[in-house]
Amino acid sequence: MYLPPHFETTDADQIANLVSYAPLATLISHVGGALRADHIPLMMTKTKLIGHIAHTNDLHRILADGAEVLAVFNGIDAYISPNSYPSKADTHEVVPTWNYEVAHVHGKITFHHDRKAKLAAVGLLTKMMETRTNGDAAWRMSDAPANFLNDKLDGIVGFEIAITQVLAKSKLSQNKSDADRLGAATALGAHPIAERMKNLSPK
Amino acid sequence: MYLPPHFETTDADQIANLVSYAPLATLISHVGGALRADHIPLMMTKTKLIGHIAHTNDLHRILADGAEVLAVFNGIDAYISPNSYPSKADTHEVVPTWNYEVAHVHGKITFHHDRKAKLAAVGLLTKMMETRTNGDAAWRMSDAPANFLNDKLDGIVGFEIAITQVLAKSKLSQNKSDADRLGAATALGAHPIAERMKNLSPK
Repeated sequence: MYLPPHFETTDADQIANLVSYAPLATLISHVGGALRADHIPLMMTKTKLIGHIAHTNDLHRILADGAEVLAVFNGIDAYISPNSYPSKADTHEVVPTWNYEVAHVHGKITFHHDRKAKLAAVGLLTKMMETRTNGDAAWRMSDAPANFLNDKLDGIVGFEIAITQVLAKSKLSQNKSDADRLGAATALGAHPIAERMKNLSPK
Repeated sequence: MYLPPHFETTDADQIANLVSYAPLATLISHVGGALRADHIPLMMTKTKLIGHIAHTNDLHRILADGAEVLAVFNGIDAYISPNSYPSKADTHEVVPTWNYEVAHVHGKITFHHDRKAKLAAVGLLTKMMETRTNGDAAWRMSDAPANFLNDKLDGIVGFEIAITQVLAKSKLSQNKSDADRLGAATALGAHPIAERMKNLSPK
């Protein structure tokens, strides 16, 4: 992606937070000469992404093990109006822009059909999302009848993506003066990207 | 993408609303054997997508006119906990899933370097976003000094994407009973996808 240095994020913890905040990845592939994107929640470790798809999703049949894929994690985004910059009143030399945070994880995919790998893939994701959503009342896979769960596992295919490159971009008005950045953040009100913009170090 | 018929959206107005709601597209291309994604706000007409990039973004130099691209528009998404289905209490035969809405617009890109096309591209987007953001107080391009605006136009490249295919998916628990769909929606509280789930026709 287009990634000017002042918008690049290289901090591994920050990137991990972004991926964990927005786990529903756009998983991009190039098959049979055509671009394709699937939408799949993924977990990231230091070396790989872990996920699963429905067995009826033909991705595991048309994408060879080792194929290059790109998982895009979309963080928060917001339109930034020129009206929100204090410098507008002085110079009027302002134009609109869009702020956003994204992580791009490139890698090579391998599908898994064995029960153990599939259980691990859904187990990790379930634990993360249930803890986040329901805390102590988290649903556990063992809450479901064993036969039912086995049928469900038969209906999915697990996969891992061995990470080859991670690129992340946090476009949060770093190219503006502190006053304009804070003005734009204030104008966004309770929008969650406003906090991210306010928390940047002053110039 | 994996698109079971019960999740497919074919209504043109609904797709246009989704694109307009979330204009920051993930613009996917395949260049030099590698997958690439740029994040660019796009406007959609019946036949094309219209956008612009920074001149310093090498996309217009490495992507030939006529190259295939895929613009993904990500609507709202939410994790759906099995706890939120009323049927859980009866059968426990429930597992987690993820609901989301997306539109995929495939097409062929052409870049524009003439001032008129660039003005039109930024003008349309500015009008849409400023009307939405500031109403009667909308910022207009004519608010900026002419020389400044000319410099800014020199710094961008316009483009159009001639649409070849549109695919849209609204995964909103249509595969569940009405009671489970409404239970899941209620559990999401004020989450904006809950309204979309509630507004589906009963089975």
